[in-house]
Amino acid sequence: MYIIAVYDVGQKRVGKMLKLCRQYLNWIQNSVFEGEISEVKLEELKIRAKEIMDEETDSFILFRTRQEKWLEKEVVGKERSSIDNFL
Amino acid sequence: MYIIAVYDVGQKRVGKMLKLCRQYLNWIQNSVFEGEISEVKLEELKIRAKEIMDEETDSFILFRTRQEKWLEKEVVGKERSSIDNFL
Repeated sequence: MYIIAVYDVGQKRVGKMLKLCRQYLNWIQNSVFEGEISEVKLEELKIRAKEIMDEETDSFILFRTRQEKWLEKEVVGKERSSIDNFL
Repeated sequence: MYIIAVYDVGQKRVGKMLKLCRQYLNWIQNSVFEGEISEVKLEELKIRAKEIMDEETDSFILFRTRQEKWLEKEVVGKERSSIDNFL
């Protein structure tokens, strides 16, 4: 399946979440990722995210779609992923 | 059509973008919005966003899908929109 993932976590946990998500998905912008992922890998990502997150204050939102073609992406302004390699 | 919109703008422009997006979409979390929107309203939103944004540094990403049912949302951790009324 194809997913978009967005996290909103406390400053201290941003680095860990970024690193985790990049192991599973493609980074688009700040806290936004997208990519094709299996059900098993997605479960793994959620479990690992919960280990990092403070579930009282942090959130991690997942939008799933069965086919990538059902989602059309448009970027207005700067495409951030071009600086991906510098992070 | 149904869209997810995420902005990443300089701190000074966050308030304006938040206010703009909330006129068109439902706020989910920080800089993330979703909602049903017409093609005409979406064009209007993009034009108004460009007026706020510094297109050299800021970005505004839109994911469109023709039908909301093609997207399934899941929130891990805290559902932020519950504090929507306090902003």
